[in-house]
Amino acid sequence: MDKVNVTEKFKLFNEHWSPKIVGEVNDAHIKLAKLKGEFEWHYHEKEDEMFFVIKGRLLLRLRDKDIWLEEGEFFIVPRGVEHLPIAKEEVHVLFVEPKTTLNTGTEITERTVTDLPTL
Amino acid sequence: MDKVNVTEKFKLFNEHWSPKIVGEVNDAHIKLAKLKGEFEWHYHEKEDEMFFVIKGRLLLRLRDKDIWLEEGEFFIVPRGVEHLPIAKEEVHVLFVEPKTTLNTGTEITERTVTDLPTL
Repeated sequence: MDKVNVTEKFKLFNEHWSPKIVGEVNDAHIKLAKLKGEFEWHYHEKEDEMFFVIKGRLLLRLRDKDIWLEEGEFFIVPRGVEHLPIAKEEVHVLFVEPKTTLNTGTEITERTVTDLPTL
Repeated sequence: MDKVNVTEKFKLFNEHWSPKIVGEVNDAHIKLAKLKGEFEWHYHEKEDEMFFVIKGRLLLRLRDKDIWLEEGEFFIVPRGVEHLPIAKEEVHVLFVEPKTTLNTGTEITERTVTDLPTL
């Protein structure tokens, strides 16, 4: 039961698209990830997913619009909504999402990450 | 389904200890509040509560220790744990907590706020 300094936690890893668990709030996990490049289209069947940009600039592409998220901005992707995160430059993101959430949504792909570490 | 700029949302209200809902992630609400002064000791029977300091400095007093939260730091108060938030100067906090969470915990007091507005 310690406090978490988000900036310090981000110094502990360098890999992209590999979320780390930094907190647990009832049924939700708080995760941190560094994103760079383009991910893949996916959706989560039963989970809403909050993207909160801590550093950098993230393009969240939905099928019907593009959302640019700057530092200090968040967007909650509702369950069932397809999305594609794109980071031209490295972006640091804090996620709030149910513990059941798989990073690639409904599909298992080579980018799926399971057994997320806790930092 | 719009993005949320946290700094802009904080400009929309001035009162203290009066959380506003700015997002919904499954069973959790994302709330913003401005805190100033001392609140009251309370705990939440079934809900963990995340305090994420966006601006300023918050003292979170627990029965067995004091936690100073600076900007960019968060602490998750586990359910059942008594806590007392104290803000010598105004602090801006983002909360992640179950929708069922009452700001004063298990007690209804003159500081209880219900029917939280959505910004």
